[in-house]
Amino acid sequence: MPPLPDLPDPAHPAHDSMLSRKFGREVANYFSGSPLNRVSFLRTDHSFISKALVHPSTSFLLLNDLAPLAADPTKLAYAKYDDVRKLIGDNPFEKTEAELIKQYNSSVTLPLVLFLGLDERMKDGFEHGIYSGRPFFAVDVTPKGTVEKEALIVIEGLKKKGLQFIEGRMHMSLNAPEAGIYAQARAVLDWNARNPFCGGCGQPTMSINVGTKRVCPPTDFASLSTAQGGATTTLATPRERAACVTRKGISNLSFPRTDPTVIMAVISHDGKRVLLGRQKRWPPYWYSTLAGFCEPAESVEEAVRREVWEESGVLLGRVVIHSTQPWPYPANLMIGAIGQALPDGEKIHLEHDPELEDAKWVEMDDIKEALRVGTSGLGEPAGEGYVEGNLRLPPQTAIANQLLRAVAEGFLEVGEVSKI
Amino acid sequence: MPPLPDLPDPAHPAHDSMLSRKFGREVANYFSGSPLNRVSFLRTDHSFISKALVHPSTSFLLLNDLAPLAADPTKLAYAKYDDVRKLIGDNPFEKTEAELIKQYNSSVTLPLVLFLGLDERMKDGFEHGIYSGRPFFAVDVTPKGTVEKEALIVIEGLKKKGLQFIEGRMHMSLNAPEAGIYAQARAVLDWNARNPFCGGCGQPTMSINVGTKRVCPPTDFASLSTAQGGATTTLATPRERAACVTRKGISNLSFPRTDPTVIMAVISHDGKRVLLGRQKRWPPYWYSTLAGFCEPAESVEEAVRREVWEESGVLLGRVVIHSTQPWPYPANLMIGAIGQALPDGEKIHLEHDPELEDAKWVEMDDIKEALRVGTSGLGEPAGEGYVEGNLRLPPQTAIANQLLRAVAEGFLEVGEVSKI
Ligand SMILES: [Zn+2]
Ligand SMILES: [Zn+2]
Repeated sequence: MPPLPDLPDPAHPAHDSMLSRKFGREVANYFSGSPLNRVSFLRTDHSFISKALVHPSTSFLLLNDLAPLAADPTKLAYAKYDDVRKLIGDNPFEKTEAELIKQYNSSVTLPLVLFLGLDERMKDGFEHGIYSGRPFFAVDVTPKGTVEKEALIVIEGLKKKGLQFIEGRMHMSLNAPEAGIYAQARAVLDWNARNPFCGGCGQPTMSINVGTKRVCPPTDFASLSTAQGGATTTLATPRERAACVTRKGISNLSFPRTDPTVIMAVISHDGKRVLLGRQKRWPPYWYSTLAGFCEPAESVEEAVRREVWEESGVLLGRVVIHSTQPWPYPANLMIGAIGQALPDGEKIHLEHDPELEDAKWVEMDDIKEALRVGTSGLGEPAGEGYVEGNLRLPPQTAIANQLLRAVAEGFLEVGEVSKI
Repeated sequence: MPPLPDLPDPAHPAHDSMLSRKFGREVANYFSGSPLNRVSFLRTDHSFISKALVHPSTSFLLLNDLAPLAADPTKLAYAKYDDVRKLIGDNPFEKTEAELIKQYNSSVTLPLVLFLGLDERMKDGFEHGIYSGRPFFAVDVTPKGTVEKEALIVIEGLKKKGLQFIEGRMHMSLNAPEAGIYAQARAVLDWNARNPFCGGCGQPTMSINVGTKRVCPPTDFASLSTAQGGATTTLATPRERAACVTRKGISNLSFPRTDPTVIMAVISHDGKRVLLGRQKRWPPYWYSTLAGFCEPAESVEEAVRREVWEESGVLLGRVVIHSTQPWPYPANLMIGAIGQALPDGEKIHLEHDPELEDAKWVEMDDIKEALRVGTSGLGEPAGEGYVEGNLRLPPQTAIANQLLRAVAEGFLEVGEVSKI
């Protein structure tokens, strides 16, 4: 399976909305916590979307090759309708979806416009039936295809206003609500950009549902599909395309993909030690929890046990799910769990799947000390008071950190453990 | 988002390997619990795979258009190497993956051969280093492409032995370990069948990693890609294909897709009632928990709150994840949660996303009674003692049933609840 996403760089604390220290507490991890109501059921309602698009309060988050427009590395900047109008057109949602599908022309680039949701806290005017708030959209302004020139004009206009597109992982320093908004925009724009063609038939696809669905249209005004790289001309009447299975009923290929990932703090059978691993490219003394992708037809609990055994040789009994974290690099859902080793399953063996450079059992006191002074992003120095040679751990923005905090605080009651 | 999968038909109890009634208990849901060790890291080791393929102990689960070969509706039947040899070839894994990719010819159908894992409990002989057990493979015997005739011969041979391919949802009556094996085979074969083309470039893709990965080869011995439906001829030297972004580094498009889904038992703020909903097509009095797909860049906890609000208008405070269930129709991972309503958020409103015909609050005693006598698959009669007009609920094979059991047993400690 693909390697794990990089861990975050600069640290920004996850917002811990703990309701009960004992049980049922809920940790909200970084990248969750968007303030927007997605009102997902309104995405096909173009009377709503076209009103929202042009409303004076509406905010547009622009992404250039997935880098978001920002005022500085801690704050997103939003464009207004007039900033993007030349790129997206006056109002692409004045027509219904059915009409837009009929007009499909694979040789024309339609900039991706994604409706993110409503910020219901904002009372600056937009109302639609019982729904109100400030509409948020995201627009892909990456210069490409037939709108390359228009996209470059939009980008230059915003740069002249002193704004910038933040590259790399600087967005890990965004505050939590903005990180949630950015995560949604990044994940969906990236999914659209990765899937210009239909996995079922190989023909180009088209974005509908304001950026949240792709369909394989039955007709095309372009004389050749752009897949073949040939010259295209626009026909007077559209040509029929080859049949496609995704047009019959509902296909999951039409919807954004999210890859479930497991990440787990493993405690010894007596609850006194924690299993940590490290990859070769990490800084010295830096360890984290184990993690990996869920496989098809595996429960999360099974995936946790399989990954821990494959990466470390350790055998687990019970597994409890703690909390989850969206991780939009590109589309992971990290499912954080806590597992307890079997009494005779604690021997470490790294040779099954040699992904880790090292794995080891660490005393709970050393975990607690590292959580206090040894956390940081991968490229950052450890905290104040850290003593060189001691354990280093991921920052609070990483769910790994939250899982280790949970085990250090006794989240999992240690009881007798046996093979599941 | 796509509608939810159908609920199971005949009931087979989930195997509840409860370790602590209080906390940390683990419920293993139906379709989890495969006895096989996937040894996923050995999939690229063709010396291992080619030995496993031809070993006399090896079992082949055959799927015809996703229907599994079976002795009767409660028991899978396995073919042997000699039964499938004429379809899959003597040993497609004698060559390395790199060699097979170099030989890629999109006009030739290669039957999908999937390595499922080792049943380590079986001591009939196969050993590979420190790994041992009976190898299990799945083979797609659907008659299609250039192997249609060979597939039909294999199918007829097995039917003559009195075996059958079970259609529809009869496999819900499989025992739990076999349901797990079938779920893995179904999910991965279906993913391969749904994705013959590359979403990144539109060209045909090729299965590698013994069925668990698809790549976009750089060359093709077929003169035309089959995507275009033209006549194909086999070239003496392969032609270069168009560039593809999935060939640079690692792309999630190369790996099976699993769609995370949330399903949740919602209790009132005082813990005395449970929120249930029903779809129009369900039998009278039949209700279940609410459910829906996770959206990109949402935590599971957020998806639970969003779906409950969209479908019922109810507002939730804390959400706790209970257990998970693979659901291979086609590729869902059901993440079961328990949520508590806010004191001022219990009013039901069905008009946001009108997916449900009805939603209502049900007293805990009525839930307990229905769990006792009112459970069944959708097409089945209720249990003995059920009184017409009373609540009906899904069977034990459904995670909805397990979640309702958990709330009836007080899984979630009811405490003060506030907005997250
Ligand atoms: Zn298609
Ligand atoms: Zn490709």
